[in-house]
Amino acid sequence: MTKIAIAIHGGAGTLVKGMMTPEKETAYRQALQKALDAGYKILENGASSMDAVEKAVQELENSHLFNAGKGSVFTATETHEMDASIMEGKNLKAGAVSLITGIANPVSLARDVMEKTEHVFLAGNGAMEFAKEVGYEIENSDYFYDEFRHNQWLEIKGTDSFQLDHSKNTSTPLSTRKDSKFGTVGAVALDENGNIAAATSTGGMTNKKYGRVGDSPMIGAGNYANNETCAVSCTGSGEYFIRGVVAYDVSCLMEHKGLSLEEATKEVIQNRIIKIGGDGGLIAIDIKGNISLEFNTEGMYRGSKNNEGLDLVEIYK
Amino acid sequence: MTKIAIAIHGGAGTLVKGMMTPEKETAYRQALQKALDAGYKILENGASSMDAVEKAVQELENSHLFNAGKGSVFTATETHEMDASIMEGKNLKAGAVSLITGIANPVSLARDVMEKTEHVFLAGNGAMEFAKEVGYEIENSDYFYDEFRHNQWLEIKGTDSFQLDHSKNTSTPLSTRKDSKFGTVGAVALDENGNIAAATSTGGMTNKKYGRVGDSPMIGAGNYANNETCAVSCTGSGEYFIRGVVAYDVSCLMEHKGLSLEEATKEVIQNRIIKIGGDGGLIAIDIKGNISLEFNTEGMYRGSKNNEGLDLVEIYK
Repeated sequence: MTKIAIAIHGGAGTLVKGMMTPEKETAYRQALQKALDAGYKILENGASSMDAVEKAVQELENSHLFNAGKGSVFTATETHEMDASIMEGKNLKAGAVSLITGIANPVSLARDVMEKTEHVFLAGNGAMEFAKEVGYEIENSDYFYDEFRHNQWLEIKGTDSFQLDHSKNTSTPLSTRKDSKFGTVGAVALDENGNIAAATSTGGMTNKKYGRVGDSPMIGAGNYANNETCAVSCTGSGEYFIRGVVAYDVSCLMEHKGLSLEEATKEVIQNRIIKIGGDGGLIAIDIKGNISLEFNTEGMYRGSKNNEGLDLVEIYK
Repeated sequence: MTKIAIAIHGGAGTLVKGMMTPEKETAYRQALQKALDAGYKILENGASSMDAVEKAVQELENSHLFNAGKGSVFTATETHEMDASIMEGKNLKAGAVSLITGIANPVSLARDVMEKTEHVFLAGNGAMEFAKEVGYEIENSDYFYDEFRHNQWLEIKGTDSFQLDHSKNTSTPLSTRKDSKFGTVGAVALDENGNIAAATSTGGMTNKKYGRVGDSPMIGAGNYANNETCAVSCTGSGEYFIRGVVAYDVSCLMEHKGLSLEEATKEVIQNRIIKIGGDGGLIAIDIKGNISLEFNTEGMYRGSKNNEGLDLVEIYK
């Protein structure tokens, strides 16, 4: 039997006390299972890992629970700015978008950049112009409205604070703010043809300004895929993940030092990224279908499934 | 004697026949020497490699000859959109800006992002808002106007073509267009305290649209610095340099495989990037002051200088 496998994440971090109820936990688990199953079904039908990671991320983007697509947090100007990327392991082709607004599924726009332009990375107004040209509907702000998100924003609106998703602790600087959740979603998959792919999507940080770009749309930092090594999607303190070039770091440790997927992801998340002050996690897969779900935070919304009996959704350690 | 050293580049590529006159060549050589000397002088005065690379890149940005700052090419909408990044090897701190307009020295704005915000990467309108808040003057379009650049743009205005700097060959796709020059500038330096740094700045591609982001502002792709390995600034087919995570690739080959700076840069530029279809070059330095100026194109505007007698400006192989 040819192996197929998929893993997803819905962000890593610490869930602040009192914010997680049994009902909420059930809702998260159901949403993760739905995305996992949707991506897995694509693989089962013989389609590509690119189709599978796009589908799984779309499902996560369509849920208001995760900070991506529909569930994106509010920026300083009460809008939603989203980033996404996707990469194909067999040819190292990639697409990414940043600072886009009104797009229900940023991951699909990233894929369109890859497939319909000669570019890898489009951002801001220009990316929106491209979206309109290829026929994307621009959703109005109601689509993205969520009372919980809006309250998050109202708490710190008008201040210089910004917050990572689900944080209650907004007065401390990013570098020392451990009590937070990194709002990003992602998927990695192996298809029956032995190709791997990775996709990442995020709604950024609550009350963020200045057109901040995090690691999610950056090939090599928040997302990477290469059949020779691994496919990786990250979620964490974006600035540190950029400086650590985290996703490609895992790939290089496998390629140059011969580390296994598990050894490489552990080394990067439990050692290298901590050394420079970063926290968060990642999901990764190799062409043998090995999966690693590594994080140095209290928890990471995650799921993994293959055709050898694995079918798991987890939140805490 | 403690070693100090600096290297700069003003882009790589093929100079199209008939576009280079003896007068023009002299002008390029003088402009390169001026930037090289300016950066070197900073090092000689005992200041940091960060100060030196910023200064050298500012000088290149202030020349209309190079596609960065003042000499930036025209976008599809007759504007100038610029990207820049800077990274400090001793602490892996970094700053980057993308899709900014009206800023004379994008490299300095990138440094301000690093030093005055908690972020690494700001883009578009948000980056401009930050620039205004920290007191940047916004130059009007006259500052960036250059007849040569404008004629370059007029040739392909209104078409779907875009071109890398100095190309005459605009009808072929990016992937097959070898006859072109990649308009980017950059600098790497080692200071007397043994710290290295890298900076990169670009004016993008003539007639580009859609808010395309190239490798220049992407930490790991077009720019990287780490005292443990090397400081790198790239110039080339940006999309391929992103997919190859080129600057960090050099660092990883040194760190994990024990390659020398020269071996690592050669492997990346003469083998790994060519394998995926990319062309261009890079400049790199390590903490011993070794310098590598590697390119797989016909030429690269470049210069290198140290306190052991090296003082060289070159264009062709």
